[in-house]
Amino acid sequence: MLTRQQIERVVAMALEEDAPHGDITSQTLVPATASATADLVAREPGVFSGGEVFAAAFTMLDPDVKVTIGTADGDLFLRGDVLASVSGSARSILQSERVALNLVQRMSGIATLTMTYVALVADTKARLVDTRKTTPGLRALERHAVRSGGGHNHRYSLSDAVMAKDNHLAVVRDNLGEALQQARRDLPHTTHIEVEVDRLEQLDEVLASGVVDTIMLDNFTLDDLRAGVAHIGDRAIVEASGNVNLETIRAIAQTGVDVISVGALTHSVRSLDLGLDMSVS
Amino acid sequence: MLTRQQIERVVAMALEEDAPHGDITSQTLVPATASATADLVAREPGVFSGGEVFAAAFTMLDPDVKVTIGTADGDLFLRGDVLASVSGSARSILQSERVALNLVQRMSGIATLTMTYVALVADTKARLVDTRKTTPGLRALERHAVRSGGGHNHRYSLSDAVMAKDNHLAVVRDNLGEALQQARRDLPHTTHIEVEVDRLEQLDEVLASGVVDTIMLDNFTLDDLRAGVAHIGDRAIVEASGNVNLETIRAIAQTGVDVISVGALTHSVRSLDLGLDMSVS
Amino acid sequence: MLTRQQIERVVAMALEEDAPHGDITSQTLVPATASATADLVAREPGVFSGGEVFAAAFTMLDPDVKVTIGTADGDLFLRGDVLASVSGSARSILQSERVALNLVQRMSGIATLTMTYVALVADTKARLVDTRKTTPGLRALERHAVRSGGGHNHRYSLSDAVMAKDNHLAVVRDNLGEALQQARRDLPHTTHIEVEVDRLEQLDEVLASGVVDTIMLDNFTLDDLRAGVAHIGDRAIVEASGNVNLETIRAIAQTGVDVISVGALTHSVRSLDLGLDMSVS
Amino acid sequence: MLTRQQIERVVAMALEEDAPHGDITSQTLVPATASATADLVAREPGVFSGGEVFAAAFTMLDPDVKVTIGTADGDLFLRGDVLASVSGSARSILQSERVALNLVQRMSGIATLTMTYVALVADTKARLVDTRKTTPGLRALERHAVRSGGGHNHRYSLSDAVMAKDNHLAVVRDNLGEALQQARRDLPHTTHIEVEVDRLEQLDEVLASGVVDTIMLDNFTLDDLRAGVAHIGDRAIVEASGNVNLETIRAIAQTGVDVISVGALTHSVRSLDLGLDMSVS
Amino acid sequence: MLTRQQIERVVAMALEEDAPHGDITSQTLVPATASATADLVAREPGVFSGGEVFAAAFTMLDPDVKVTIGTADGDLFLRGDVLASVSGSARSILQSERVALNLVQRMSGIATLTMTYVALVADTKARLVDTRKTTPGLRALERHAVRSGGGHNHRYSLSDAVMAKDNHLAVVRDNLGEALQQARRDLPHTTHIEVEVDRLEQLDEVLASGVVDTIMLDNFTLDDLRAGVAHIGDRAIVEASGNVNLETIRAIAQTGVDVISVGALTHSVRSLDLGLDMSVS
Amino acid sequence: MLTRQQIERVVAMALEEDAPHGDITSQTLVPATASATADLVAREPGVFSGGEVFAAAFTMLDPDVKVTIGTADGDLFLRGDVLASVSGSARSILQSERVALNLVQRMSGIATLTMTYVALVADTKARLVDTRKTTPGLRALERHAVRSGGGHNHRYSLSDAVMAKDNHLAVVRDNLGEALQQARRDLPHTTHIEVEVDRLEQLDEVLASGVVDTIMLDNFTLDDLRAGVAHIGDRAIVEASGNVNLETIRAIAQTGVDVISVGALTHSVRSLDLGLDMSVS
Repeated sequence: MLTRQQIERVVAMALEEDAPHGDITSQTLVPATASATADLVAREPGVFSGGEVFAAAFTMLDPDVKVTIGTADGDLFLRGDVLASVSGSARSILQSERVALNLVQRMSGIATLTMTYVALVADTKARLVDTRKTTPGLRALERHAVRSGGGHNHRYSLSDAVMAKDNHLAVVRDNLGEALQQARRDLPHTTHIEVEVDRLEQLDEVLASGVVDTIMLDNFTLDDLRAGVAHIGDRAIVEASGNVNLETIRAIAQTGVDVISVGALTHSVRSLDLGLDMSVS
Repeated sequence: MLTRQQIERVVAMALEEDAPHGDITSQTLVPATASATADLVAREPGVFSGGEVFAAAFTMLDPDVKVTIGTADGDLFLRGDVLASVSGSARSILQSERVALNLVQRMSGIATLTMTYVALVADTKARLVDTRKTTPGLRALERHAVRSGGGHNHRYSLSDAVMAKDNHLAVVRDNLGEALQQARRDLPHTTHIEVEVDRLEQLDEVLASGVVDTIMLDNFTLDDLRAGVAHIGDRAIVEASGNVNLETIRAIAQTGVDVISVGALTHSVRSLDLGLDMSVS
Repeated sequence: MLTRQQIERVVAMALEEDAPHGDITSQTLVPATASATADLVAREPGVFSGGEVFAAAFTMLDPDVKVTIGTADGDLFLRGDVLASVSGSARSILQSERVALNLVQRMSGIATLTMTYVALVADTKARLVDTRKTTPGLRALERHAVRSGGGHNHRYSLSDAVMAKDNHLAVVRDNLGEALQQARRDLPHTTHIEVEVDRLEQLDEVLASGVVDTIMLDNFTLDDLRAGVAHIGDRAIVEASGNVNLETIRAIAQTGVDVISVGALTHSVRSLDLGLDMSVS
Repeated sequence: MLTRQQIERVVAMALEEDAPHGDITSQTLVPATASATADLVAREPGVFSGGEVFAAAFTMLDPDVKVTIGTADGDLFLRGDVLASVSGSARSILQSERVALNLVQRMSGIATLTMTYVALVADTKARLVDTRKTTPGLRALERHAVRSGGGHNHRYSLSDAVMAKDNHLAVVRDNLGEALQQARRDLPHTTHIEVEVDRLEQLDEVLASGVVDTIMLDNFTLDDLRAGVAHIGDRAIVEASGNVNLETIRAIAQTGVDVISVGALTHSVRSLDLGLDMSVS
Repeated sequence: MLTRQQIERVVAMALEEDAPHGDITSQTLVPATASATADLVAREPGVFSGGEVFAAAFTMLDPDVKVTIGTADGDLFLRGDVLASVSGSARSILQSERVALNLVQRMSGIATLTMTYVALVADTKARLVDTRKTTPGLRALERHAVRSGGGHNHRYSLSDAVMAKDNHLAVVRDNLGEALQQARRDLPHTTHIEVEVDRLEQLDEVLASGVVDTIMLDNFTLDDLRAGVAHIGDRAIVEASGNVNLETIRAIAQTGVDVISVGALTHSVRSLDLGLDMSVS
Repeated sequence: MLTRQQIERVVAMALEEDAPHGDITSQTLVPATASATADLVAREPGVFSGGEVFAAAFTMLDPDVKVTIGTADGDLFLRGDVLASVSGSARSILQSERVALNLVQRMSGIATLTMTYVALVADTKARLVDTRKTTPGLRALERHAVRSGGGHNHRYSLSDAVMAKDNHLAVVRDNLGEALQQARRDLPHTTHIEVEVDRLEQLDEVLASGVVDTIMLDNFTLDDLRAGVAHIGDRAIVEASGNVNLETIRAIAQTGVDVISVGALTHSVRSLDLGLDMSVS
């Protein structure tokens, strides 16, 4: 769930960026007393995400603007559906419009793409998770959008779980087990330890350490994934990573892995086509 | 050109977001004294953008890390090219890696897409420009990336030029000319005034005001664009907008318009595949 | 128009500066329950500016204080007029008083001086504009005050219009035309280009570039201003600058220039004498 | 003395305000490699103040710019004197110029006016002090400028000394002595207590409290000032306030008061005419 | 008195520190619609401090939570007393609980310890004061807590009073009197000057300067304190410092000193045992 | 490990709090050119923590001050040991002294207390951990200090691990297992889930959920702790909490629990007596 602080930080920054000295067009062409209503309309089908963020883009600029969100985050919608409605000062609505759309379009784009991935693995035990390949400054919102689409989140940041990747392993190569055991001793007992391996042969050393919670199998073939899953058993959670796309994910999930991480969920965002149909009175 | 302040604001925020309490993996697995070198390598061809931002992601975390940018913003590169090199503390490089890549991949993705559009209109007089459909918080960087790709920028924000759109016109419908003249009287003499029209019949009223610098022809057919260009002549800059994509832009440019704005340059960013090949010593 | 954010940023900073740990006098001498009313009274005639800012100085400290602004920004007032009224907690009003006065006195001082200049050129076509010689941190408020006095604004900052001054011209001397054309090609089509010239002989080169929107004639004699206006015709907006004061502005305006910029509007502010007459109950 | 933090806060804010997205004129017309030198030259005589602030306006934008301050704060200078010199990137110097001048002109204007007042009372025991009528956001700098001109500072803010004015006295009228004694008991023993009186008759009650450090005689005639000074003796510091200007201050000082406060030092700032003579190479 | 700004700055920072991305336990286990009530209950007797701060910890997170403070700051309470009550969203109350307790427990701990010291000197003329040995970031709150316990505050910071300690004296040793007189001449007339002395022999030089408001006798024996008090008379306020604890303070106070400063009030805080008894509905 | 950002945020805030307008004592009594050296000396034995923080208190104010830390965080020291040395401007050192000491004394106080607890359980398998009862704003530093003393950290905040306490359990009483399983399904696979139980009878339901990583036995008798440890076996980490102090911890550890959390490590900080012995030259 997004916190009020997370929403307000992003929206305040976006409003400031888009109108540091106000909206000179509305101020000169639109009477201060003009009011307007506007509907957020889907121009294509998808999964909604960002209702609270959309609302905040209007109400943080002008607390007198009323926003009604008719669609819950995570709901599917069709082309033409009215997702939310806004009413209040025409000037205020015109000024907030672009910020509101920029945010809700990106979030719903992520939710929609996520849902497509999730649908492909729905009958497997694999959970789809995001990565740290998020847009700088928008991580909280993009993680929320992934959840709206039915996906799950991976660790939030470098500060809250261990993820030993190839470069880390290169440093500690000769004493990997010992290094991991030392990490387990030093870090809070609540810290999750995940290790990335590139080939099956690494598994035994990692498992032998006895302190690994999740093993990420990076860029494995389907056969190797299956072998890895079988070999690891219930000794660790198994995550598949690398070359995951809409064509490959289903087969990957069917290998029996627990978690599949997909950078594409957030590193390449296609904004969903949502429009604001306004009528000024 | 990006200012130091613009770069530092984004990078500081991204580093904080990605490691609020430090990188617990590197701190526990990588010795404080280990050093590393890393190359930024292109995994696909493209146009580079964000060299200074990439460098700042390392040097703001650790001023002792050295970054050499071998590729100027705007340069083309091929798959396999080394675009930049980094050396210093292994811990520092590992911690900054994701932030550096997240930014330079997005910026180079935008520059590359922009260059594709620009190439299609290179032999026309049309200039390709961005819109306000940028990622909240990253507008300065994304506008820079558009310039790296050979594109141009539109107005920065709602505060620095007038752009009267359909909803504004709806309010002032009966006295558009008068309203525009009033805006011209009220606003600084340095303010550019642009008006969006949806059909050819609106042109005469807009031109009659005598105060419009640019007319945007929104969602016009090619025939109507040609008619608009002929009708407006040199009385205003002509901008085409709407339904611009890689299939349509060339024909649009050939109608003789001066400016073509493309929201897709920034509203849907595909990160370019750039990797950091590290060797730890 | 001032935005809420612009007002709040200045007022919050001023309140913090003037009472970082509260008002120890009121806290020790005035009972928490005492209430007061206060009138903002003109001790000399002038033009009002800063009503919203004045109000914010009270309501941002204590939302329960009520402020009634009886005078619109831009209104003339006479000695003795009551311009606004305040009621609420005596402690709160006493604490905000100085900040409220410091701001409204400066803004009304600027508005009043501006109106004097404007009156002298009222029957000419010249518009009076401010400059970047504003008080650091208060630019938005001082520009607003200039508008309250009937003046106009010049560009907001170095980021939103080109103004090529003597030092810029010194760098590009031999290829001024080419440099300006390059600037026009590089910058957004919405960017206004203004060039300052010191003598008539420079005009032809500047005009020949074909890309200049405004020419500033700096420190010209009246004869040269007239010659410049005639020579430029409608090829550019003509701005006069330098040695503009209450004695000279009328003759300058009568030369036919379009714009006259006056640094004195803001670089030397005389606070208008407005007082707060309080009665404590 | 100004602290580095006080200087940096103001200068950073001013630079951001004046060029939020950089200086587009210099970026397009001045080559990145052009260098320049510039002299800060006095166009009129005065007292210098703000050397460190002037320097910071250049070095905070570009640490490679070198600034040499040849004149100490508080030094007198004549028309034509070179007060400081700057060298470095032409772009950087052009971008910082206005911010540097806006600050040093205001500060030197205050210092010069202060010195005029101070000269008029130099052979009396009266010290000239400022008030809280400073420009919001610039209090630290303006207080420093007053000291540069030979003046003294009054309390910094509402938080660091008691100043009971007419409105406070109105609240506690019947038990002023008791209220003051209570304040003395409650506040730190390091807190100075000052009370403003409007007529001689109030003096005995104030003095009887036994806890007042300074008595301000507000808008007293010269005769009453003399009487007040005599009556108070060494029981409190005596401050004169109200109707103090260049015509009246000498006579006021000769009444024997210890302190004279002058709002005009800062509430109406005339910027001193200092220019930056640049040569670009 | 604490200002709203002082409270909000600390509480906002504490809430952010304790739940940067929300409270994942409550979000997953507690329904959004569940409500709760909670009592702040004393698990040991003491003196209350921080009611407003406690309330802000709930209302700043969720303005719909209602907090009733039944105990004024400075009130004594017994084990089992209900000091305040909270009602509203169960999720909100659970999320704010720790921050609210961390603050009010520390503040009440300080108030309680202060009261113990104050009680020991209640029948003497000595006032008990705090020092600058406060927890970084919490000075305003801890000073308030000292006042809740019946103590007084010393100067707020290095910026608002002179306190010449041994190291300062070491620098100016040979011309202490002159240096102090120069300080008196340079600083505002509202500035309090205090000098620390280590032995009786220093007193005459300090007193001879004629400009010292308070003399601190540091680490004096009781005999020397008595001698110091007698020697200084009413020429300065006398502060005792050093080796003050619950065993020694009474005797120190009985020497006749005016002020006793106790670093232990804030440098070693024992949180008082206050609990939040919640019932969820 | 503390990050540079964590250190700088706290130190910058503390320096600003302690000298918003500079140190008026040093500025008036100590010549700008005077230099000094100072040793951080232990006045009692203990465990050191905060070396980098201590250094930053000097170098952030004045980068020319040199600080040599001779003692690593976690090192034991004796009374009289010199732990660090400082040299540079006397004014700068005097101004930073209090901030530096306030921080390093608190941190070393926590480290020392922690080490005492750790020593008592050194021969058991129990790890000693801190809680969220830290001083608001100083959590990162206090957690570091706990590590310096040989302790471990618990979760950082409400955002990074689940800890279901009695009040959470009260809400979900009838379907605890289901609620926990739902949390496990919703939260990242890297999230640790801990549940607090008050009596042995709750264990089976919690264990039956199959998703709990740690079980906290709150306020258990020693017998019940032993029973709990035996019953849980290796199905979860076992944490003991409540009534842990220097008298009880050893027996608690000997029951075989894995983790013992002690709020007293940070909720009641006794600053260690470290002094700065300065000599001014």
